[in-house]
Amino acid sequence: MEEINNIEVVPCTDSEYLKPLTVHYNQNGTKKSWDYMRTHDSVSVLIFNTTSHCFVLVKQFRPAVYMCEWERAKSQPAKAAAAAEKKEEGAAEVSEAQAGASSAGEGSSEWPPACAGVTYELCAGLVDKPDLTLEEIARQEILEECGFDVPTSKLKRITSYRSGVGVTGAKQTMFYAEVSDDNRVSAGGGEPKEGELIEVVKIPLHEAMTFAYNERIPKTMGVIFSFMWFHNNMAPRTLLPHRRKVPGYVPTQPSNAEVRFPGTLKYSFYLLYVVCRHFCFIFF
Amino acid sequence: MEEINNIEVVPCTDSEYLKPLTVHYNQNGTKKSWDYMRTHDSVSVLIFNTTSHCFVLVKQFRPAVYMCEWERAKSQPAKAAAAAEKKEEGAAEVSEAQAGASSAGEGSSEWPPACAGVTYELCAGLVDKPDLTLEEIARQEILEECGFDVPTSKLKRITSYRSGVGVTGAKQTMFYAEVSDDNRVSAGGGEPKEGELIEVVKIPLHEAMTFAYNERIPKTMGVIFSFMWFHNNMAPRTLLPHRRKVPGYVPTQPSNAEVRFPGTLKYSFYLLYVVCRHFCFIFF
Repeated sequence: MEEINNIEVVPCTDSEYLKPLTVHYNQNGTKKSWDYMRTHDSVSVLIFNTTSHCFVLVKQFRPAVYMCEWERAKSQPAKAAAAAEKKEEGAAEVSEAQAGASSAGEGSSEWPPACAGVTYELCAGLVDKPDLTLEEIARQEILEECGFDVPTSKLKRITSYRSGVGVTGAKQTMFYAEVSDDNRVSAGGGEPKEGELIEVVKIPLHEAMTFAYNERIPKTMGVIFSFMWFHNNMAPRTLLPHRRKVPGYVPTQPSNAEVRFPGTLKYSFYLLYVVCRHFCFIFF
Repeated sequence: MEEINNIEVVPCTDSEYLKPLTVHYNQNGTKKSWDYMRTHDSVSVLIFNTTSHCFVLVKQFRPAVYMCEWERAKSQPAKAAAAAEKKEEGAAEVSEAQAGASSAGEGSSEWPPACAGVTYELCAGLVDKPDLTLEEIARQEILEECGFDVPTSKLKRITSYRSGVGVTGAKQTMFYAEVSDDNRVSAGGGEPKEGELIEVVKIPLHEAMTFAYNERIPKTMGVIFSFMWFHNNMAPRTLLPHRRKVPGYVPTQPSNAEVRFPGTLKYSFYLLYVVCRHFCFIFF
């Protein structure tokens, strides 16, 4: 339900956040230079709610993504308009709120609709508090952005990797957090005083992979990767005893399987799958 | 085998590559500002060599990653020294070349070893040629960086997502390319005139997931994600008929399974795994 208008772009001469630097160096005797930016490392958290059997993501308007779409619209007007329309359709399938996204103000034919800048992401935050461990920062972000109070001991480290190797080179560490409705202490939504306008969204487990690979829904790679990681590593424990329906959720495609197939046989397949996967990981 | 020295960092006032901008806008009636950078979209390619049953990655010195490690070393001297040592060990496990990485020049106690800035990545490139399709750009990158000539018709689109939602907001599209030694036309290594110093590395399929989750080997999320994607989606077709050994490769951990377990039974497990996974994806 974003309304974006009065957009104005100006050169950024002295930013508090973006500080471009140039490093001159010799690599194997060859003199080289590289422009880069100093930035903070970050943490991201895949949150799974065991009460509703949903992943908990955050959805927010990202000015950088929006401006990127605007650039695209400028360079390929016809192509981009079609893409923005497509995107709107895709988003509408997933969340009613998104369907309400309205287009920008001045010269609206030129500016893409606001939803072009709205992305689905894992709960995440910068590592900018030297006194806190990565787990403590992750815990704070889960609380602020999604409203769940999870002890750090319940955070499982998935892995770490480099993000933006060309420009920032920062390290991101990904965690997995299992929550239940009992851990819920607030509605989340970020820190209003930091200007965060974050919407917390639930993605039911059985829709997760369809959601992940739907390119019409703008999202980060972290979402796709972590959903797949969950399916490969955590699903056995959390999926059983049974899948639950989430009230008010309109699935992106009808799941007929449940109607057609008796439950016990389904889970037998699942158990067989898990056992075989385990052996395959050992063998190959 | 990188040697980095004569490092000098200066403020970057007018970069050809980094152009910070500020966008002022109204979001739901609230006046906001955001600093961001204009950048190009990109493509990345997971390359699998069906002759040697290896993934083909690129390995290169990334100044931004190196400087990030340097910042870390400055803020936590003791911690970072240990981490750099660890990283060196990890890298040595994977490639002999990496073990030869030597440390930086002036004030070498202050600068981390060169290998701290070397990352493993998918073959990738910027979408900066408006006349070419994403597939054509991907094809060029495979040729330039890895030396394989693959027709665009053989590129399979995996998915697309947003990278760097905070700063750049660009879109990256990931492809899968199957190559064989017959497609090899050069050694790869990038365009020397563009200053690229890229090493092409092979990761055997049966070591891929161990490699992916080894946090001591610096890599991008694209590597981890695409390896997992391959295991979930492509392995059935390419893994069978049988796994092959790659000459000269020292595995990161001994694979005893092959010795202990007869081949046919292994592949029966694999087939059962694939069948069950298929049904599970339908049911859940």
